[in-house]
Amino acid sequence: MVSWLKNSGKDRDVVVSSRVRLARNLSNYNFPTKMTSVDMDEVYKDVVAALGNGGFTSFRISDIPYLEKIMLVEKHVISPALIEKNESGFSMTEDETATVMINEEDHIRIQVLDSGLSLENTWKRADELDNLLEEKVEYAYDEKVGYLTACPTNLGTGMRASVMIHLPALELTRQVNKVLSPVAQFGLAVRGVYGEGTKAMGSLYQISNQITMGDREETIIRKIENIAGQISEKERMARKYLLENDRTNYEDRIFRAYGILKNARKISHEEAAKLLSYVKLGIDAEIIKNNDINELDKLFIEIQPASIQFIERKEMDTNERDIKRAEILRDEIK
Amino acid sequence: MVSWLKNSGKDRDVVVSSRVRLARNLSNYNFPTKMTSVDMDEVYKDVVAALGNGGFTSFRISDIPYLEKIMLVEKHVISPALIEKNESGFSMTEDETATVMINEEDHIRIQVLDSGLSLENTWKRADELDNLLEEKVEYAYDEKVGYLTACPTNLGTGMRASVMIHLPALELTRQVNKVLSPVAQFGLAVRGVYGEGTKAMGSLYQISNQITMGDREETIIRKIENIAGQISEKERMARKYLLENDRTNYEDRIFRAYGILKNARKISHEEAAKLLSYVKLGIDAEIIKNNDINELDKLFIEIQPASIQFIERKEMDTNERDIKRAEILRDEIK
Repeated sequence: MVSWLKNSGKDRDVVVSSRVRLARNLSNYNFPTKMTSVDMDEVYKDVVAALGNGGFTSFRISDIPYLEKIMLVEKHVISPALIEKNESGFSMTEDETATVMINEEDHIRIQVLDSGLSLENTWKRADELDNLLEEKVEYAYDEKVGYLTACPTNLGTGMRASVMIHLPALELTRQVNKVLSPVAQFGLAVRGVYGEGTKAMGSLYQISNQITMGDREETIIRKIENIAGQISEKERMARKYLLENDRTNYEDRIFRAYGILKNARKISHEEAAKLLSYVKLGIDAEIIKNNDINELDKLFIEIQPASIQFIERKEMDTNERDIKRAEILRDEIK
Repeated sequence: MVSWLKNSGKDRDVVVSSRVRLARNLSNYNFPTKMTSVDMDEVYKDVVAALGNGGFTSFRISDIPYLEKIMLVEKHVISPALIEKNESGFSMTEDETATVMINEEDHIRIQVLDSGLSLENTWKRADELDNLLEEKVEYAYDEKVGYLTACPTNLGTGMRASVMIHLPALELTRQVNKVLSPVAQFGLAVRGVYGEGTKAMGSLYQISNQITMGDREETIIRKIENIAGQISEKERMARKYLLENDRTNYEDRIFRAYGILKNARKISHEEAAKLLSYVKLGIDAEIIKNNDINELDKLFIEIQPASIQFIERKEMDTNERDIKRAEILRDEIK
């Protein structure tokens, strides 16, 4: 189901994925907050035409069934804000690594996803897409400010670069706050997987730039790559420490998580994410065999509420989802 | 290790075991509390001689290594009080179903154990042993009171009959207090497995007679058998109810317990007993296959602290025991 996660990329043992998104607006239309439906339709057509048929398929949000829309959000292919408006749409590549969202908060949101610590590469692809579009449409741009955006927090580069990192050992050794708090000094923010205000489910954290003005894109990218690399190293040291100094408890935690996931008949999203996190740690430490870290990372995404309902092609209540989730986990974990 | 538990007996799905013990004293000696070591030695010799070689092997407590003594207590073959005195001893059959404890609280404590609801049978065997001894020694007996004992709570018949019953479904449906409290009206007491004041570990309860005077042995036995039979029926109804009305949660609880026991690397006695209790329920409901209820009941006994140390032939701290216990459980559960 999740096609963009690959078993490759730098620091893949800690960094699950990298993402770059660029906010852009067309100069000849009002910002989406002040637009008519007719103008939104024009923007959609302009952007789709600009992309041409370079491997992109385009969809209007109003044409996509409810569950599929949420599932795409859960897969990080589109944003939660995009599906709130019927006039919005998006174009995406078949492997879902690149998406151009249309009429989200801004006219255009270019997004590129990749596995592992791969911001330079994702930035390069996003930049190419940006150039492709810029050849066909005129962006709202100010010589002094940079790209103009609906929300001032995106002004300038319009870029938000982020990495999703898995920090179970830093959590277990109670170092996670100590390690993550200095990140703010560098103008970076730490969030849960589901964005601002959400907690870190399954020990997954998102680190992204707060500031979009002042620095060049390459500088921001390099800063996040550096810091993510340092945090990965600290997570690795914590894993090594636990393995060497507290092996029995470490193995116990991992195997119990494995035993529950292989046997439960009903499991909540939160518990499943927590247990998957330990199994992932076990795979990394080669304590759990016959499982692929990439398949496990996909499970984190596939056990989310809409994704489960999408598999079953029907709406399900919490209880039904918890039962189906347990079934998927029993089947998928080897 | 535990030889007296068999996969047979009435109401074996709920009643783990039945036990009858008779307190007796010799008329020509003071009670053990007021005895000299020399007299204790005489009593030991008298009783062993009286038993002859009718399948009994006799041991002085002082000759038995520390861990083995506690293990015999954990197996319910001898009582905790017996091992506190160096002058005490016991004779037991090879299958450990019958024990004669010597110089415990009373000169003689005859005990017979059996699987399932089998009090009539255990009483019959205890009575035969009692008659055998009475042919050779003179009991302290009063025409009006009955058998004289060190503690007045045993006066009369000197008999304590008890059954160990497994009530997980009554616990899960929160009916256990409602079902067990009327038992007191019939002069019966409910206790945890480890006797008075202990809690019901692994949903195991012990029901025994409080009163040893007034009624004949057969009357007491029949009363306990009746009540244990009724409680078993209620437990069965609760199991059926859960299976029919709450199957997913029921299976989830059972399989999670199974998954943890099959995977944990470290487990406390209390947690292990609780999880074994659910697996036992799963075997009874044929949800867990390939496991024998008898082997599982033996595990309840074999995972106790001294039994674990006895297997390893060395003293172990709590942490070492918890690791060894997890290993035994992973190996023994199929």
